[in-house]
Amino acid sequence: MDDFKAVLVEYSSWFNEKLKDLFPLPQGAEKKVVEAMYYSVSNGGKRLRPFLVAETATLFGIPKEKSFPVAAALECLHSYSLIHDDLPAMDNDDLRRGKPTCHKKFDEATAILAGDGLLTYAFELISSPQASSSTKIRCELVSLLASAAGAFDGMVAGQMLDLYSEQDNASYHLEEIINHIEEMKTGRLIRFACEAGAVLGKADKKLRQALITYSRKIGVAFQIADDILDVEGNPVLVGKALNKDAAQGKLTFVGLYGLDKSKQMAKDLIKEAKQALLPFGNSSKTLQQLADFIINRSC
Amino acid sequence: MDDFKAVLVEYSSWFNEKLKDLFPLPQGAEKKVVEAMYYSVSNGGKRLRPFLVAETATLFGIPKEKSFPVAAALECLHSYSLIHDDLPAMDNDDLRRGKPTCHKKFDEATAILAGDGLLTYAFELISSPQASSSTKIRCELVSLLASAAGAFDGMVAGQMLDLYSEQDNASYHLEEIINHIEEMKTGRLIRFACEAGAVLGKADKKLRQALITYSRKIGVAFQIADDILDVEGNPVLVGKALNKDAAQGKLTFVGLYGLDKSKQMAKDLIKEAKQALLPFGNSSKTLQQLADFIINRSC
Repeated sequence: MDDFKAVLVEYSSWFNEKLKDLFPLPQGAEKKVVEAMYYSVSNGGKRLRPFLVAETATLFGIPKEKSFPVAAALECLHSYSLIHDDLPAMDNDDLRRGKPTCHKKFDEATAILAGDGLLTYAFELISSPQASSSTKIRCELVSLLASAAGAFDGMVAGQMLDLYSEQDNASYHLEEIINHIEEMKTGRLIRFACEAGAVLGKADKKLRQALITYSRKIGVAFQIADDILDVEGNPVLVGKALNKDAAQGKLTFVGLYGLDKSKQMAKDLIKEAKQALLPFGNSSKTLQQLADFIINRSC
Repeated sequence: MDDFKAVLVEYSSWFNEKLKDLFPLPQGAEKKVVEAMYYSVSNGGKRLRPFLVAETATLFGIPKEKSFPVAAALECLHSYSLIHDDLPAMDNDDLRRGKPTCHKKFDEATAILAGDGLLTYAFELISSPQASSSTKIRCELVSLLASAAGAFDGMVAGQMLDLYSEQDNASYHLEEIINHIEEMKTGRLIRFACEAGAVLGKADKKLRQALITYSRKIGVAFQIADDILDVEGNPVLVGKALNKDAAQGKLTFVGLYGLDKSKQMAKDLIKEAKQALLPFGNSSKTLQQLADFIINRSC
């Protein structure tokens, strides 16, 4: 596990350094929105999603420098979703990873625009020639990302369902709802990360499907682990107040299945995730370790 | 002018009909966000931007059916910007085209997510094979749209400067600021509309530049006309409260140059816009009429 953490930290340090260059400050009063964007995207995340892009692309011989624009686009998009989720009208969070959230550090209008700017920038990065020399690959990545992040069955739909599932759940059982929320809200971006590696690497159908299966399993496990951390994590390490989900009456895996069963479910999922990597043999060692890390992390 | 209005109304009726099919409702509680998206995008706009895409593409023999996905993507993006601009933390508007704004009709969280969803959907539409059979063209359109809408020197930057220009304008003269705001906030999307027609039509450099010049001129004229309508328009036709800009201390062309000079500036710009269309001869008749309409409209 320590080996893996070192690899992840090395990647995230490298990623953070490269990220700076993507946020040159404009001259006028509009520079504040770019400052807010960079404040949020540089705010100490684990960089799990970019790392997944890099690691899955590496399976096909693509170095991390080449997958960087796609990895950065995904992190911009993830970061936008956190800024908007934290807004007073949404989850109303003051802290994110131990620091003031974007609207607390700046103001609400700037935070809304910073989120909009990061979402838009994701598509600018991913459609640029630096993302891939092939326009076919770039187009496929734009489509996949837009669909994964979207309102029909992507991240925006997941956030909507998460906010309103308490009010209108007549048409689903709770087990269905929570899986549906997870799949859309967290799962689709994690799936995109792994699928992007396969697309960049021109993977055949079988290997692409193996990575999708892997991503689905770790995606659910990731959400279960998040729910567990919300109950029994260390607030200093987690970087925000605990028990917020329960206080807000949100549907969580822990609330629905209890701590013990949730932990067992996460373990089973990680086992299945690792099985999905069998076609890649030893070269998938880091991705296997990443699966373990997902349920053993402290933040 | 009546001829032109009939052409515009015919296009917008056709466009509105086609638009419906792009918003199928999901099943669960998340359907509310798609309802909010469609509520906003179907809220009786003039469809000037989609019409510009269609008309400029027509110059190169591309029928409106073929340019529809790009036209729809642009309108989704425009509509997202209106939803977010209307939010309490931004312009705090209750009415838009005479109807409750998105956050008034639904709620603030839904409005934020509906805007996010429309912005994301714009990129899904424009990267789809329906937008163009050429991946090169689709990639170029995605890049152009992301840049035009973005935070570095696009629409988000324009909105930021518009909100904060009063607080920090040491580095610009007022004339520079207002032109800069207009160029980014309104101008870039209007330019995109015209450039998209050129890209879809594989226009040569000279014709593409002619359309860009045309778009720049009508873009500024459009903003001046908006500022004039805010002062002397009919509130019933305009569909919102008047004199809001002055009340909010915003920088406007009318505030800076006065009504008479603003009207003259708009007239001059429209003359120049029409001159830019000369290389297209008679086939640009509708675009010439559109230029006149921009400063003669009542809403």
